[in-house]
Parts: sequence; C-alpha cells; structure tokens
Amino acid sequence: MKKTLYNYLKQYSDSDMYPFHMPGHKRNFQCGLLSGLYRMDITEIDGFDNLHEPESIIKDAQERAAELYHSEESFYLVNGSTSGILSAVSALSGGANRLIIARNCHKAVYHAAFLNHMKLYDVYPEIYEEYDIAGPVSVEAVEKEIKAILQETDEEKSAAEAIAGVVITSPTYDGVVSDVKAIADMVHGYGVPLIVDQAHGAHFGFHPSYPENAVSQGADIVIHSVHKTLPAPTQTALLHRNGNLIDREKLKRYLHIYQSSSPSYLLMAGIDEALFTIATEGFRRLDELLGLRKQLEKRAETFQHIRVCPHTEPGKLIISVKNTSVTGQELSDILRKTYHLQMEMASGSYVTAILTMMDTKEGMERLATALQEIDQNLSATSEKQLPLPGLKIHPKRVMEIYEAYQSKFEKVDLKEAVDRTAAEFVSLYPPGIPILVPGEVISERVLEIIQGYQERGYVVQGIDQGKLKVISILE
Amino acid sequence: MKKTLYNYLKQYSDSDMYPFHMPGHKRNFQCGLLSGLYRMDITEIDGFDNLHEPESIIKDAQERAAELYHSEESFYLVNGSTSGILSAVSALSGGANRLIIARNCHKAVYHAAFLNHMKLYDVYPEIYEEYDIAGPVSVEAVEKEIKAILQETDEEKSAAEAIAGVVITSPTYDGVVSDVKAIADMVHGYGVPLIVDQAHGAHFGFHPSYPENAVSQGADIVIHSVHKTLPAPTQTALLHRNGNLIDREKLKRYLHIYQSSSPSYLLMAGIDEALFTIATEGFRRLDELLGLRKQLEKRAETFQHIRVCPHTEPGKLIISVKNTSVTGQELSDILRKTYHLQMEMASGSYVTAILTMMDTKEGMERLATALQEIDQNLSATSEKQLPLPGLKIHPKRVMEIYEAYQSKFEKVDLKEAVDRTAAEFVSLYPPGIPILVPGEVISERVLEIIQGYQERGYVVQGIDQGKLKVISILE
Repeated sequence: MKKTLYNYLKQYSDSDMYPFHMPGHKRNFQCGLLSGLYRMDITEIDGFDNLHEPESIIKDAQERAAELYHSEESFYLVNGSTSGILSAVSALSGGANRLIIARNCHKAVYHAAFLNHMKLYDVYPEIYEEYDIAGPVSVEAVEKEIKAILQETDEEKSAAEAIAGVVITSPTYDGVVSDVKAIADMVHGYGVPLIVDQAHGAHFGFHPSYPENAVSQGADIVIHSVHKTLPAPTQTALLHRNGNLIDREKLKRYLHIYQSSSPSYLLMAGIDEALFTIATEGFRRLDELLGLRKQLEKRAETFQHIRVCPHTEPGKLIISVKNTSVTGQELSDILRKTYHLQMEMASGSYVTAILTMMDTKEGMERLATALQEIDQNLSATSEKQLPLPGLKIHPKRVMEIYEAYQSKFEKVDLKEAVDRTAAEFVSLYPPGIPILVPGEVISERVLEIIQGYQERGYVVQGIDQGKLKVISILE
Repeated sequence: MKKTLYNYLKQYSDSDMYPFHMPGHKRNFQCGLLSGLYRMDITEIDGFDNLHEPESIIKDAQERAAELYHSEESFYLVNGSTSGILSAVSALSGGANRLIIARNCHKAVYHAAFLNHMKLYDVYPEIYEEYDIAGPVSVEAVEKEIKAILQETDEEKSAAEAIAGVVITSPTYDGVVSDVKAIADMVHGYGVPLIVDQAHGAHFGFHPSYPENAVSQGADIVIHSVHKTLPAPTQTALLHRNGNLIDREKLKRYLHIYQSSSPSYLLMAGIDEALFTIATEGFRRLDELLGLRKQLEKRAETFQHIRVCPHTEPGKLIISVKNTSVTGQELSDILRKTYHLQMEMASGSYVTAILTMMDTKEGMERLATALQEIDQNLSATSEKQLPLPGLKIHPKRVMEIYEAYQSKFEKVDLKEAVDRTAAEFVSLYPPGIPILVPGEVISERVLEIIQGYQERGYVVQGIDQGKLKVISILE
C-alpha cells in the first residue's frame, strides 16, 4: 500500500472506530457524490498528526514534498497560496520594512505589506505589446530599485538592513516566467531574500520542456498552488523554504497564525495524492500534454485572426483576438455558450486557458475545432479592445498602503475621483492584480480604463454601485 | 430541487462543460472514495459566485444563514473559526487598543491581538472544582475589568475610546456557557462591542433544551464552527454580525485578507448542506440526541466512580474520573484500544466526548456499556491527576504580547525557566488554550504543571525537546 494520507484516512474509515469527536457529521452524513468526503473527513485524533506541530504522517508527507521539490523544508497549506504569501512576507517583518515587489503581484502580497506596515517599492514587468500581457521582471529592474533604496538611505544602511525582501510572481497568471535564477543570485549578492509566488508553477521542474522550478533556482521561499496545475482540490498549496535569509521560526509562527487550527485532512490528503501523481506519472503526463498542445498549435497556424501567444510556459494557452472584431470576453462567451468550453479568464484582447496533465485529447480537439470555426467568422478591427490594466500605467504612490488602507475614506462617483488618492484596491477579476492600490493617485487615464472595462461587462472589483473609495480630505 | 450550493455543483458536474480552468484536476481525478470530491470541486467560474464579492448563489447562501441565525449579516468561512476570530478582532483595530479577553480564549484571539498590537486585559472564568473544568465568565468580572481600565486612563477617556472590545468563549471547549445576554447588555451600556467565540455552539438556538444562540443574545459578532457540532466538513465556519459597534467594511476587508482567494466550493457547499439539515431536521435530531443522552446518564447514575458533569450543554459529555485510579488520558486510551471509541479530548481528570445530532443509538450504547465495565475496575485515589492548567494559576503579564512575541529569545531547559518571561505560547493540546502566553512570567507552579503533564504523556505544545523559549536577557 502506498503510504499517502489518503490511505490512512481510508484505513480509519474502514475501521469500526466510533467517533465521539469532531467533525460533527460523525462520518455518516449522506450527501450524494460528496458522501465519500464525509466518510473520510476527520480531525487530528489519536494516530493522526497535527499540521501545526507535525510529528508523524503529516511530517512524513511534508518531507516527501521537500524531497520532490528539492527544498530544505516544505509546508502544506490548507488556506491556499494566500496563507503562504501572508506568512512568507510576515516572516520578513520586524527589521527592515521596505519591500520590493513586482507590481503585478497578487493582492495577498499587498495585504501582507499592509498587515506588517511595510513600505512598497514597485518593479514593473516588461510588456508584450503584441499580446497585451505582462512580460518578465528583469534582474536589472530589480537591482535598480535596490540601488535607489540604498541612495534614499544615503547608503548608511546595507541593503540587508534597509530592505526586508523582494517578491516576484513567476510564472504570471498568463504563464510568463522571469529569470528567477539571475534575480536570486543578484539579490543574494546584497544579502536580501527572494520570495517567488509560483502559484501557477507547481508543475515546473518535472520535464525539460517546462520551466525550471523556482526552488531549484535559488529562491528563499517559493509558494505553489497545488490546485492550480496539479490534480489537487481547490484551496491547497505548498510553501518551500531554503537557506538562512528568512527566519524559520518566524515563518512557522505565521503559518500557524494564518491557517485554521482545524485544518481539513481531505485537503491535505489531496495535496499528498497530487504530489504522488506528479512524482510517479508527472513526466509522462506532462509529455502527453506537450503533444496535445503541439497539435492545437499546428491547427492554429492556419487561423486568419486568432493567435496563440508564444511567450508562455506550455501549461498556459493565451488565445489572442487582438485587432479582431471580438473582445476576449466575447470570445470566452462564445466558447462557453456555443461550445461548452469554459475558459479560465477573459481579458481585453485575449482569453486564458489552463492546460494541465489531466487534460484529454477530446477536450483539446474540441477547443481547436471551436477556435477554427470562430476564426472564420472574425474580421480585423480593434475598436472594442482595451490595453492591459495597471501595468502600462504606473500610478503614483503618495501614501503608504498601511496608512491609506486605515484612513478615513469617502465614496465618490468615478468622474469625481480624478486626482484623489485610492482608499481601496481596484482590480479586474480575474486575475485580481490591482489596477489601483490604496495610497495611489487616481489619474484620468486610470479612470478611463476602469470605465472602459465596466462598459464592456468585465468584473471590476473595488467599485461599488459606480462609486470608488478615496481618502477623505476633511480630516 | 432544493437550491443549495451542492445542487449547483451537481448540475455543473452533470453537464458536458469542459474545463479549461482551475482546479488542475479537471474534475476527472480518480481517488477512491474521494473521486466525487474531485468531480464537483470547482472555482469561481461563470455562473458561480465569488466568496470575496458575493453577488449570486453565495450571497443567497449567506442570506439563508443570516435568516437561520437571526443575524443582520452572515459570512461563510473556509479557513475555520480561526479566520473569523482574526477578522473580528482586527475589525476592532485602528482606535482603542485595549482588548478584554476571557483567559480561556482560543489561541487565535491572542494571535489577533499580536497582529494588531493590542494590549490584553484578562478575565478569568470561574472554576468548577469538582470537575476541574472552567466555568462561566461572569458579567461582574468583565465589568470589573472595564472599570479598572477606566481608572487606569484616569477616566479621561470614555470606555468606548479606551476599550476596543470584549472577547469571550461560550460555550467553552468543555460545553460550559456564560450569560452572554447579561454580558452583552452590560458592555453595550459602555458602548463597547462584544465578540463571542461560539465555535462549539452552532447548534444552539434550535431546541429549547439547548442554550440560546449568542446571536440572539445580543453579541455584536458571533463565530460558529460549523464542522464542530453540525454535519459539515472540517475547517468550515460562520461569522455573524449585528449592530453598528463594529465597522462592517473593516470586517469584510479582514475576512478577505485572512482567507484564500481560491476558496473551496466543496467546503462552502458543506456549510450550506449542514445549515439546510439543521433548518429542516434540527429540532427532531437534537431532540433524539437528548433522549440518547438521558439514557446514558441514567446508566451512569449506577456507576461507582465515573461521573458525568452536569454543568455542560447537552452536546458535550464530560466524563470525570476525578479521584479515581485512572487519569483522563488513561480512560481515553482504554476506550479507544479496548472499545474502539475515539474521544475528542483527554484532560487530567476527565475525557470529553462530543455528541451531535448525527450520533447513533448504537454508538451511545457502546459508550455507556464501555464506561460501565471500566467503572467496575476503578478504585478511589487521585495521586496521578492534575489540576486544570492555566486557569487556576494566573500568570503575571510583564510585557505586551506584540512585544514579547517579536523579542529576541533563547531556549532554556524547563528548570532554568523559572521567573523568566515566556516568548512562546505553551498549551495543552487539545484544547489549545494557553497555559502561558508570550509576555507572561513563568512561575515555579506553572513549570510543575507543565512537567506533570509531560510526564503523564499529554501533548504540551510550545516545549521543544525539553526546552522553552524565554525572552533573552542580553539585549
């Protein structure tokens, strides 16, 4: 029998042990397809381990994860990559309070900076104009920011004394990777730690045609969403730690704080099964996916209008309709309504499909055929499309996030918000990367972009009934 | 068809929609009893709602919860009561920074105070000496603390300006309830909000023989673990909000921060199903449980040594072996090994069994028979038992938790720790209520208790290889 958490749960579920303990469903709640879930859902009881002080089967499972990803230590997360990011950034707190971040980081990075009263220094990624997507973050851009901070502090402080750390996202939500190795080497030269939000890259490092894993590339902490690209339940993630630049005890403390004291064994078992699968079948399955993708790309070569973006890792398919007669949202709607193909995300001029080692030949062929048919009905025009939000415009920060997010605010109409300071995040969802961060000035251009997205039916978070929260002037 | 989240998931799972989105298992991962879980696990896609900005089916589900519990607003939690407590206490931050807490609060309350740099003021519950368990927190004890704070601030500030809020736990882990109504009325007289951690009381208010629900009793925020006493998966909880003393926008912000941006639909569906069950069958099932409990209590009347504690709500069975020849841990071990009955918790002189509306006649009879047999082999003696940790002793706080938990520390042997200041929580797990909180002085008596528990095989968290973290003197 393979020794995964699932098998321990199965064994317990098959026993005649009667539960006078939580959960309250007592393992006999009947709920259709989910009845098996209740049958196996337990809490930390005798014979089972405690995620927050692991000593046996969870410890073993985490050690298997560390071995698989070549980390010194790995942690199971049941509150998503969100909890990993909060914990990683919080572990940097207590000394230097400047945090260099890629501006296209997930909201959780901003939340962590807020909670820990950190000052943010933005690095903007390059832009692939032809596809309206964010490109990599360059090692030069990060180093420039480090040098600017050293100058700001009159070089009285070393970089390590002045800068808590650097956080980048690689791959992006769109599947674009940065040169993590070069960035890690450079920041380590300054004694500064690197956190890589690799939520979308848990499948990296298992096949030579996919990018290397950030753990092997030298990042101090790497966060992987297991559910995004591996066969694991939603809300599961991993955090890997290497080296001595980040305080291990502090990290563990925050992992404990930000996660439920009743972690779900089903979620943990789901992580374990996914890792078992990538360990034993990963290469073969990822190889098969490459084959399926190549077939689709070959068919796409014959398309007149629709293009597949070449800048992504194989697990992301950016289907561009830039300069055509439809928007990304319209393409997504057609694919869903007419072809019953549900996309991950629609942006101004493209849709994103997530491809994983669980995809099937049938599904990929349905997509290729659908795109071929749609392509034949498109024409060339671009009037309805919109540029990438939040990355081509660089809003000016006039207030630190921890001040702005706690300040008195008022709600004003969009047209009255110009030149005011944002008191709330505004983001296009998905992907949830902020167009505006609390403390940033709201320019006319930003307002145009927000209105444009709203008019075209995209979900813009942070706008409530046409109103935006801005810092109150009367104070 | 009943309109619960489960049914929406089932409908989607039955459709021919092909997923080019997360989760990466693409709904076709085979994993024994859990295959149904993968079949129905989705993320927020078209037609489904977003927990962090609910507008349709999750909004409806939360409104059903609010109606059921008579709150103005209820929130689903996928990161356990932990995330509810962190959010509730954080929502009090920004103004007054004094927090009055019952000393037997869950660790998450202390964590929240740490994160928000709040000063803690302890209220100790009464003790039921006969059973070694914590009793209620009295309204007088809470008011005494409010008055002491007003005196400390020379009454220049109103109570509302000086005190962020009051947090109590009712019922306790052992099932003891406090007079929430009287406490709510009293603190509201001072303009101070009351948070009730009612993690173990999601079943309250549905049957007249069970306690009233804290939501109806006037608490401003109530947190319920749904998984503890209702038929819901582990890690699920609810937060209910009433009144205007706590900032609603702030609360929502923190709920967003402390929970995954990829919340599990399975956990949310699990909450909805559990609430549907208590709404439709709650009275009948709770009534049946009362009957089963009475039968067990009747048999217990004939026991020579084992006693059932009468101070708890019907869902908790405290089986006391105080002044007998076994400890709680030994009783728990016998029940598990010989009778295959797994208890919730073992303490010095008792074990705790959780009884829910999902318990069966067969299970309850097995327990009664087992206890009867064990009782016949016991004798009267008390030498191996230990008093209640952390509540009879009142450690002195010499440093605020946010200072102590960030200070330089050293690890010392237990015997060298006397009169030093704790830099880490020390708690008996379960229930995880702190014996020592960072910033408290370690007395000889506390060390005796800790050693006593360790010698008897209890899990004492916060001690690592016989060493304890204390604040460093050299600084």
